[in-house]
Amino acid sequence: MVPSPTGAGRPRTRGTVLNHIRSARTVSRIELAATSGLTPATITGVVRELMDHGLVVEVGRGASTGGKPPTLLQVNPDARYAVGILFERNTCVIVVVDLTGQQVARTSFPSTALMPPQQALSLVAARVDALLGTAAVDRDRVLGVGLATYGPQDRQAGVLLTHQPTDEWFGYPVGPFLSGLLGLPVLLDNDAVAAAIGEHWLGAVAERAFGCVYMASGIGGGVVVDGEVYRGSSSNGVAIGHITIDIDGDPCDCGNHGCLGNYADPSALVKQAMEASGLGQRLGLDPDDPDVMTGFRRIATAAGAGDPTARRLIERSARYIGTAATTMTNLFDLDVIVLAGPSLAVARTIYHSVIEAEVRRRTFARRAHPVRVVMSVSGSDAAAIGGAVLVLQSELAFLDLDRPAVTGSVPATARSQPT
Amino acid sequence: MVPSPTGAGRPRTRGTVLNHIRSARTVSRIELAATSGLTPATITGVVRELMDHGLVVEVGRGASTGGKPPTLLQVNPDARYAVGILFERNTCVIVVVDLTGQQVARTSFPSTALMPPQQALSLVAARVDALLGTAAVDRDRVLGVGLATYGPQDRQAGVLLTHQPTDEWFGYPVGPFLSGLLGLPVLLDNDAVAAAIGEHWLGAVAERAFGCVYMASGIGGGVVVDGEVYRGSSSNGVAIGHITIDIDGDPCDCGNHGCLGNYADPSALVKQAMEASGLGQRLGLDPDDPDVMTGFRRIATAAGAGDPTARRLIERSARYIGTAATTMTNLFDLDVIVLAGPSLAVARTIYHSVIEAEVRRRTFARRAHPVRVVMSVSGSDAAAIGGAVLVLQSELAFLDLDRPAVTGSVPATARSQPT
Repeated sequence: MVPSPTGAGRPRTRGTVLNHIRSARTVSRIELAATSGLTPATITGVVRELMDHGLVVEVGRGASTGGKPPTLLQVNPDARYAVGILFERNTCVIVVVDLTGQQVARTSFPSTALMPPQQALSLVAARVDALLGTAAVDRDRVLGVGLATYGPQDRQAGVLLTHQPTDEWFGYPVGPFLSGLLGLPVLLDNDAVAAAIGEHWLGAVAERAFGCVYMASGIGGGVVVDGEVYRGSSSNGVAIGHITIDIDGDPCDCGNHGCLGNYADPSALVKQAMEASGLGQRLGLDPDDPDVMTGFRRIATAAGAGDPTARRLIERSARYIGTAATTMTNLFDLDVIVLAGPSLAVARTIYHSVIEAEVRRRTFARRAHPVRVVMSVSGSDAAAIGGAVLVLQSELAFLDLDRPAVTGSVPATARSQPT
Repeated sequence: MVPSPTGAGRPRTRGTVLNHIRSARTVSRIELAATSGLTPATITGVVRELMDHGLVVEVGRGASTGGKPPTLLQVNPDARYAVGILFERNTCVIVVVDLTGQQVARTSFPSTALMPPQQALSLVAARVDALLGTAAVDRDRVLGVGLATYGPQDRQAGVLLTHQPTDEWFGYPVGPFLSGLLGLPVLLDNDAVAAAIGEHWLGAVAERAFGCVYMASGIGGGVVVDGEVYRGSSSNGVAIGHITIDIDGDPCDCGNHGCLGNYADPSALVKQAMEASGLGQRLGLDPDDPDVMTGFRRIATAAGAGDPTARRLIERSARYIGTAATTMTNLFDLDVIVLAGPSLAVARTIYHSVIEAEVRRRTFARRAHPVRVVMSVSGSDAAAIGGAVLVLQSELAFLDLDRPAVTGSVPATARSQPT
């Protein structure tokens, strides 16, 4: 049965109220009515429901504004949890966050790059199970799993539309398969989008429009305006790794030419280091090693330690990314660029200073408003934490208290394990 | 006094209903209730109000579905009008459109480029007055004026933040000044954004997300997703003329390097023609003529007539714009690119075929959905028509029947003429 508009309104209002309490940290009922635009009577009723279900708790009294000091409310962090997974060619990070988005458990393990999808996802599922066990998180309090990885994707179907890392992954229903293994809803999304929404949720950016430049083994982007992710036609936008920065550049696997990634990502830097007067040999790089992150980290470390050749390579990568970040601000008219992901974190000082200088000097709309460049508050784990936040945000948009946390939003197709 | 939520709801509902009638062309009350989600009683009441004010008329009966054949409704095109102005360095186009967005009058005149702002805008205002007179459009039925021009802009204040064409224009309150001269509300917006919303309103694009690539004397862009213009922080985005296409390219006036415009816009092509084995001399081009459009048209005409040097230049410009259009689809994840503006119209066959080939072959998300490239239905006048449509759309969002059309939405600051 389709719920009536009145029936649907209540879960939406609950979600709104809970989200206001969460973002305020502590807040009185009167302040809640003012910030949410809801009537005091509605606030009183909804807060009672949220307290009855253990989602909100009273935490003392605030300052008096004349009469009786108002009781302050807070989200109960342990009432619900979400799992976030960064699934990359060369690494996998799994986090568990509480209802406020704070990390309560974390694990990571290297490369599942060359495994077939079923084997890789089974390993991921086993690690999720183990992490929930170690952290002693009740499974029936876990709202779901956010799986952040590369694209293009069919986000609705939970399917990858890429041949990376191998052909077997193209068209594979990673979302439904992982959901079947875990018995939890799984939301598939782009790693850079996850990082961006995580940054927003954790309150790191106050401005209206911001973009995330994300670098792991590849380079991607996400844009958030007024708290909403920019999705475009199919949620496959902000592909900044495939901005043409050289009109006469070489073809890329994506079909385009002169793409940023081919000049500035970790694979490109390992190749450049092999060609640069003995640097590759000096750092013991292996150009055939599929784990490019190890090689990239050695280059970044050498750059930080003052090796001039390594430093020149990282600076050039930063300048190229700064050019693409400027194109991003020129197209999306952003107030802030957030730098996130393991590869930017590993050489953060150089990347931050060079990209900031490029963006500040070159952005078209700088006469209309300033543009800041900042490092992510979540560093290397931004996409994993953001994946978990996507689950919290999705659940809070429509907070149904009458169903158990675990079973609600898994679509029927996502519950059957593909054979 | 702030209107109560109930009071504000009625004008919004009226606007919604009128917009549904407009986009359906003819529609019954029953169909209106179905498409708008409003109750039949609300539809009956609102339609009566709209008819009482002459905005909607009955136009006969539709097919019976069993009972009495339903009465069909239509927008009365002559009930309201809007003025749209494309204000360019080298040309000015003024159109009057009716309530359905159809053009009922048009005029254009060359270059106001080197006039001071007050003189140029006084000339524009005189031409608007004359055009309304010639077209015999009642002034009290004119909702306002949409002024489409280049950026960056402070759209809210109606002020340009550019030194183009001369320093006097920077910070000049073009919106308030023109509004004072005409006694009509003036909305300032970007020319490419105006072209994009015009295309949407005229029903030319059915897909969810589309972008407009606009070329007059400069190159700009606009993006519309789910019927809404993408605005970003300050409505100064989609500046595709300032995408870096050559990482080591020369500095641009905007502060960036290797910008598309410097390789592919009309000024760049006139320069290239002067350097290309006698083409400039053959076509009688004058590199010092501030009216670059005349020179550009000669190159485009020669290319169309088979001159191989001219053709090579236009094709290269098209390939560069195709590269930037691909960056635009890769960042905004678009279903359609619409090509608009006088400079693309003048060599439409070459631009369309080359840009389409580039975008189709190179777009990152082409595995998730197709990407079409089409010519604007409004051709050279897209931004002027779009400017008028921006006024209609803005008024229809909040249709206040109790005030005269002319005076309502001019902010106080916009009514006083600057001295």
